[in-house]
Amino acid sequence: MSKKLKIGLFGFGCVGQGLYHVLKNSTGFKADIVKIAVKDKAKLRTVEPSLITYNKWEILENPEIDVVVELIDDADEAFQIVSEALRRRKHVVTANKKMLAEHLEELYHLQYEYNVSLLYEAAACGSIPIIRSLEEYFDNEELKKVSGIFNGTTNYILTKTLTENLTYQEALCQAKDKGFAESNPVNDVEGFDPKFKAIIIALHAFGLIIKPSGVLNIGITTLQEIDIKYANEKGYKIKLTPHIHHITRDKVSVFVVPSFIKSQNHLFNVDNEFNGVIVEGKFSGEQFFQGKGAGSYPTGAAVLSDISALSHGYKYEFKKYTQNQILSFSNDVILEVYFRYNSPNDLQYLHFEEITEKYSSDSYYYVIGKIHLEHLIGYREYILTNNLFISLINERVEISNDEKLKKSFKKEFQIF
Amino acid sequence: MSKKLKIGLFGFGCVGQGLYHVLKNSTGFKADIVKIAVKDKAKLRTVEPSLITYNKWEILENPEIDVVVELIDDADEAFQIVSEALRRRKHVVTANKKMLAEHLEELYHLQYEYNVSLLYEAAACGSIPIIRSLEEYFDNEELKKVSGIFNGTTNYILTKTLTENLTYQEALCQAKDKGFAESNPVNDVEGFDPKFKAIIIALHAFGLIIKPSGVLNIGITTLQEIDIKYANEKGYKIKLTPHIHHITRDKVSVFVVPSFIKSQNHLFNVDNEFNGVIVEGKFSGEQFFQGKGAGSYPTGAAVLSDISALSHGYKYEFKKYTQNQILSFSNDVILEVYFRYNSPNDLQYLHFEEITEKYSSDSYYYVIGKIHLEHLIGYREYILTNNLFISLINERVEISNDEKLKKSFKKEFQIF
Repeated sequence: MSKKLKIGLFGFGCVGQGLYHVLKNSTGFKADIVKIAVKDKAKLRTVEPSLITYNKWEILENPEIDVVVELIDDADEAFQIVSEALRRRKHVVTANKKMLAEHLEELYHLQYEYNVSLLYEAAACGSIPIIRSLEEYFDNEELKKVSGIFNGTTNYILTKTLTENLTYQEALCQAKDKGFAESNPVNDVEGFDPKFKAIIIALHAFGLIIKPSGVLNIGITTLQEIDIKYANEKGYKIKLTPHIHHITRDKVSVFVVPSFIKSQNHLFNVDNEFNGVIVEGKFSGEQFFQGKGAGSYPTGAAVLSDISALSHGYKYEFKKYTQNQILSFSNDVILEVYFRYNSPNDLQYLHFEEITEKYSSDSYYYVIGKIHLEHLIGYREYILTNNLFISLINERVEISNDEKLKKSFKKEFQIF
Repeated sequence: MSKKLKIGLFGFGCVGQGLYHVLKNSTGFKADIVKIAVKDKAKLRTVEPSLITYNKWEILENPEIDVVVELIDDADEAFQIVSEALRRRKHVVTANKKMLAEHLEELYHLQYEYNVSLLYEAAACGSIPIIRSLEEYFDNEELKKVSGIFNGTTNYILTKTLTENLTYQEALCQAKDKGFAESNPVNDVEGFDPKFKAIIIALHAFGLIIKPSGVLNIGITTLQEIDIKYANEKGYKIKLTPHIHHITRDKVSVFVVPSFIKSQNHLFNVDNEFNGVIVEGKFSGEQFFQGKGAGSYPTGAAVLSDISALSHGYKYEFKKYTQNQILSFSNDVILEVYFRYNSPNDLQYLHFEEITEKYSSDSYYYVIGKIHLEHLIGYREYILTNNLFISLINERVEISNDEKLKKSFKKEFQIF
């Protein structure tokens, strides 16, 4: 059934080397990496020098190569490579979530127009087969939500700071040492990476193409000792969680924020570099997936799985996208949050719909209350630059503008 | 891409009705159930009488019907129906694990010979897409193990008896009331059902066709208050767990026994009717899947997912089976177990390789020790008829016959 594929690989960093190793050691399947395009001429490479090129056209213009595997960091350059490869009717496997999230619509049309396959399981939640499961298994079921822990680096940092009392900086260094965090970890720790993944997942779960700029992401950079203390006292763990929620008949909301997680929640025990995904279907109920979300071998294995699928002629059919007639993206929801601030002034800027608890001391303040997501988006910068911390609490999101809906929703929807 | 399928349905019990409901309420996909074959003429049916037939040939001989969905209890009758349907070049979706486990080889050849598709995701672990993930996602990776909780009924009973102090009988009745347990629950509580599922999974995970009669299954029928007390004191939960382990380079062992589960284990929090599956890959590491393992809607949704896959021309390729050249099934392993018995004589019958703890009181006895799986198979009947209880402990399986292998194995392999 399967044919032997000739692969042109872009990038030979952590994941590229992982793929090379996994491919060499995989059973029953052989594909050849015939060329590896890299940038840095000074770096010593662990493979045969004849495999290496510094010229991307050596891969793109090689008619023998039928699959381009794109594993470079730079999202703009990656988009140039991937779109050119598709136009040249080469199949593409990529793990670049930023590039995907920013160009979903163009890429969808390109792979369709040139009738080639674009696969990216490794771009979302490492070794968990979430795109494939959404595309092939939940394709005919209406989903209520997808949420979870989509970023291994921040989860590693949070686990170490919460349970081993490491400082944020120590934990970040460890994550870098283990190859989980990139040298510039801003995409991870500010929540961009899980947002990009949430956007990719929203396409396959709800058939929506959403612009990243419209989606709130608040990361963990402003987390302080006192926030950890609060969470510990209440028995919560803090996790950075993307939420993709079918909130009303025709609206889906997407956002990424830190969350206080209760021990009954599946995500409570997803620690270190692991990722977890919760998919709630109308009929199948709640499904939970857990697997390694970072590291060169798990990601390499995910890339290999896509290459293998290609060898069997697999293509995403974007079933939810072609079916979707009514759903659209919305930020019109209210979140219940813990908000820790450092001066009474801070509270004046943020408009809460309702405040249920208020705490003050010499050194810091917090409130528990309900805030509109649109409003939170407006004050994201203020929160980050002033070192304030916000975390979803009580695991609930509410519809904002319709009292009747709000009521029925309250009963039905609990985030976790 | 997809064509509208005409379905002939066998059986209209819990799952059949669930499928009917889910199909009617699914989005973006329409398939027609054109005929439903049932047995009991006295039963009132909730669908149009013209849909119902009592004659199986009305479906099998109808050229308009391209898919047979088989959801009846009787495994022998199911095999007649399914094999006849395949020979008549109808695609088949079935949830009958007993039938599948007993006839995997014939069915594999039939679907191959007549070039039709036989899908059975609903036969293994309800709403968890485990067969599909093994077949499509882990197809090129060497796996170390698959284990988990594959039976929702026993897990429901164990949860209720362990955490809510219900008696076994009370919990079983509740499970029946909720539609999780069949009127004759012997397949569930004696561990046959998870064994059949383990056998199906072994085909897709390791490429092995194993006869059910060669695989040990010990269920939960002899569980007593004192065993629960012991587990509680040690902080364990008791779960009925199938184990499919790649134990040496060329051997895979399969068995189903109750297990003491520690709180760090993924399965610890898989309660009630939920199923959990752990897949450990050489490179992807440990994956964990959780979802509803019983109930008419989750199972109906799994059946629908197979019907939908059929509409896109999907077929299992049995990749591991066609690739497998060296793996074979073996019972040559040693298990560490808790063994509770009622008279000192009981211990004389069972030969332990090693005993590390021994307890006796007026009313009962237990040992912790290592026992060979072959030996356990020989004494299964004795254990069950004498109301003794055995549970895997310390989460470890060892190779029996090679000291060197044993050593390296000890380091590498931990069941959970």
